[in-house]
Amino acid sequence: MTAPVHELRVDGQRLWASLMELAQIGATPKGGVCRLALSDLDRQARDWLCAQGRALGMSVRVDAIGNIFLRRAGLRDDLPPVMTGSHIDTQPTGGKFDGNYGVLAGLEVVRTLNAHGVQTQAPIEVVSWTNEEGSRFVPVMMGSGVHVGAIALEAAYAARDADGVSVREALSGIGYLGEKPMQAAPAAAYFEAHIEQGPVLEQHNAVIGVVPGVLGIRWFDCTVTGMEAHAGPTPMAMRQDAMQGAARLMQMVVDLAHEFAPHGRGTVGMVQVYPNSRNVIPGQVRFSVDLRASSDTDVDAMAERFAQRAQELVSGWGLSMSLVPVSAYPAQVFAPKCQALIEQAAQRLGLAHMPVVSGAGHDAVYMARVAPTGMIFIPCAGGISHNEIEDAKPEHITAGADVLLQAMLAVAEVA
Amino acid sequence: MTAPVHELRVDGQRLWASLMELAQIGATPKGGVCRLALSDLDRQARDWLCAQGRALGMSVRVDAIGNIFLRRAGLRDDLPPVMTGSHIDTQPTGGKFDGNYGVLAGLEVVRTLNAHGVQTQAPIEVVSWTNEEGSRFVPVMMGSGVHVGAIALEAAYAARDADGVSVREALSGIGYLGEKPMQAAPAAAYFEAHIEQGPVLEQHNAVIGVVPGVLGIRWFDCTVTGMEAHAGPTPMAMRQDAMQGAARLMQMVVDLAHEFAPHGRGTVGMVQVYPNSRNVIPGQVRFSVDLRASSDTDVDAMAERFAQRAQELVSGWGLSMSLVPVSAYPAQVFAPKCQALIEQAAQRLGLAHMPVVSGAGHDAVYMARVAPTGMIFIPCAGGISHNEIEDAKPEHITAGADVLLQAMLAVAEVA
Repeated sequence: MTAPVHELRVDGQRLWASLMELAQIGATPKGGVCRLALSDLDRQARDWLCAQGRALGMSVRVDAIGNIFLRRAGLRDDLPPVMTGSHIDTQPTGGKFDGNYGVLAGLEVVRTLNAHGVQTQAPIEVVSWTNEEGSRFVPVMMGSGVHVGAIALEAAYAARDADGVSVREALSGIGYLGEKPMQAAPAAAYFEAHIEQGPVLEQHNAVIGVVPGVLGIRWFDCTVTGMEAHAGPTPMAMRQDAMQGAARLMQMVVDLAHEFAPHGRGTVGMVQVYPNSRNVIPGQVRFSVDLRASSDTDVDAMAERFAQRAQELVSGWGLSMSLVPVSAYPAQVFAPKCQALIEQAAQRLGLAHMPVVSGAGHDAVYMARVAPTGMIFIPCAGGISHNEIEDAKPEHITAGADVLLQAMLAVAEVA
Repeated sequence: MTAPVHELRVDGQRLWASLMELAQIGATPKGGVCRLALSDLDRQARDWLCAQGRALGMSVRVDAIGNIFLRRAGLRDDLPPVMTGSHIDTQPTGGKFDGNYGVLAGLEVVRTLNAHGVQTQAPIEVVSWTNEEGSRFVPVMMGSGVHVGAIALEAAYAARDADGVSVREALSGIGYLGEKPMQAAPAAAYFEAHIEQGPVLEQHNAVIGVVPGVLGIRWFDCTVTGMEAHAGPTPMAMRQDAMQGAARLMQMVVDLAHEFAPHGRGTVGMVQVYPNSRNVIPGQVRFSVDLRASSDTDVDAMAERFAQRAQELVSGWGLSMSLVPVSAYPAQVFAPKCQALIEQAAQRLGLAHMPVVSGAGHDAVYMARVAPTGMIFIPCAGGISHNEIEDAKPEHITAGADVLLQAMLAVAEVA
């Protein structure tokens, strides 16, 4: 090896070709991918991935929840590994890049090291986590959750799909029920490259998003109850219109997000009106509340303010309400050290970069509980994902993998 | 006959008993009535009604749309008749009083006249109009609409229920397809007694509502379009949230009603959200707009203001909208002469009375196009109707029929 390590670059065309090759497994007519976790298509993709790893001289291990660990030995193989990865299961109408990019960018890092004969002190591991999407089996981020002990293995095994097939049966059926529980061993760092799945990088003409952390999430079902009555004979002053009350609370969800700017988020995505008839004043409206903020303190404060203010207002309108918690996902701050390595790599590579908080969960959120963790975002067209039209530019795919390579090398140390 | 005409009173117990008897036909376990227009239960009720009329010495005519005219001859039988009536079809989950009360109050007027040997100059007609509810066949108020020429007979015949049965087939099937078109002959007056179907009388402790007219109605479908996106990764400033736009427009519907107080009414009864998923910012929301006001000028002004302001606001939010007219029902003012007769009767009877505008349509609205028309409202429990728990107090049932009797006698003139 002759060139200095910081001049190493991935082969963007090779990485792109591997993404397109993997996207053939479960390809949809609209250009997307449907490859549900632990399906036969997932098996095909896993087999392909393991073969790719073996061809690069990597060892393959599968743990009890089906996570695949591809390992390139280090000069000092007893050192904690430098890890990267993501997932290769997709949504039913998924795209080619969500998850797949993070796994194949990891393989491309190894290919680049092999091609240039670079040896690292610490071993390098590329992980493909089982069932990140949660489309077929709930909960989401199952493989990484079990790995770090956030989800009990037996609970994960017991999850069943719509046809009644359990995770354990499905793992066994595709031949990916590993023997060892494989609880998290110490890792020097975990990096995950991923499409942003949002519009921020694209709108700022930036190429690399340095992710400071993942927002905390709180989900509620809010039900406003009034009194259904005929729209004609009931004067305005004698109404208990649940929809009008609900409409104001829906605006409060958004107002609260602005109070917790810049990272506060508030969304009402789901609304059900009863009896939902044109000339009947609604007697009851149920709607979802999705609150997100950069810390658990903030998101809990949002939830508390919503509950308090909504209750006060609703009583004043002669209505009643209930607010039922549905789910809560904690906020996660990523390691400053990893953020700095990603930022420095982008800087050296001359890539426009900026901090972009992650509003959605990723396997990195669980890994951050057991290892210094960082995420690298690249733009995706229109911020769209979980959609067959999901798209990313080859130069961004390349740029993200170059940053990943440099950040991993900085931790793994070249001899 | 000895007592002065203004001392005549109906027999409240007899009227109540007849209501309870009719309510047996199509009685539901919850205490309501399900007697859809032109069903076999409707036939049974019609047969019962005709037998009641004949027993009172009335002639029975059925017109081409199945309206039943029960006639008590006048001393001067060539005079235009004094008419009253309503309907005996019900909603699928209907009550005992809606419609039925108006028809049986008319029969009770005739029973009272017979019992006291009172003869009137003008003939008296009690009408039962076909398919007022519109639950099985659209449009609503079909029989009275055809009678006054607002609905073409052939169009009414062609209307089909969910099973594909036409009105003509159904009329023929139950034996109520009359031969004559029976276009409206001149009438001296038309009175209709009806439960209020709203809360105003009850809340004011009044017994008689003198109805000045019926509100004009305009129905629209409003669709707000934004861009669906993930609730997590999309910052507030980069959203085109259709639900948030729709929520503001829904409030505008109510604000407009207050601008046209006291009779303006605005209701959003029906809401559909797309894709209606908890963690997706809604891309599209469709909702119904129901605007009512006491004149067509007012209700058209409401609709125009809504369209204009909504369009401006929505563009400012980066959303788009469409507003599609669905139906329009004109406002109708009732004859001041008839209102005065009702008010005077209530006054003489010592019954607490007040003007109560009708927010919903009635057969009287069509009759007002061809005859001096008045409506008498009585309270119903909680303002609730179109519901099996619909209820009215015997003393109010009696009071409304007494007012009807006095108002009709004032027009029909006693010898």
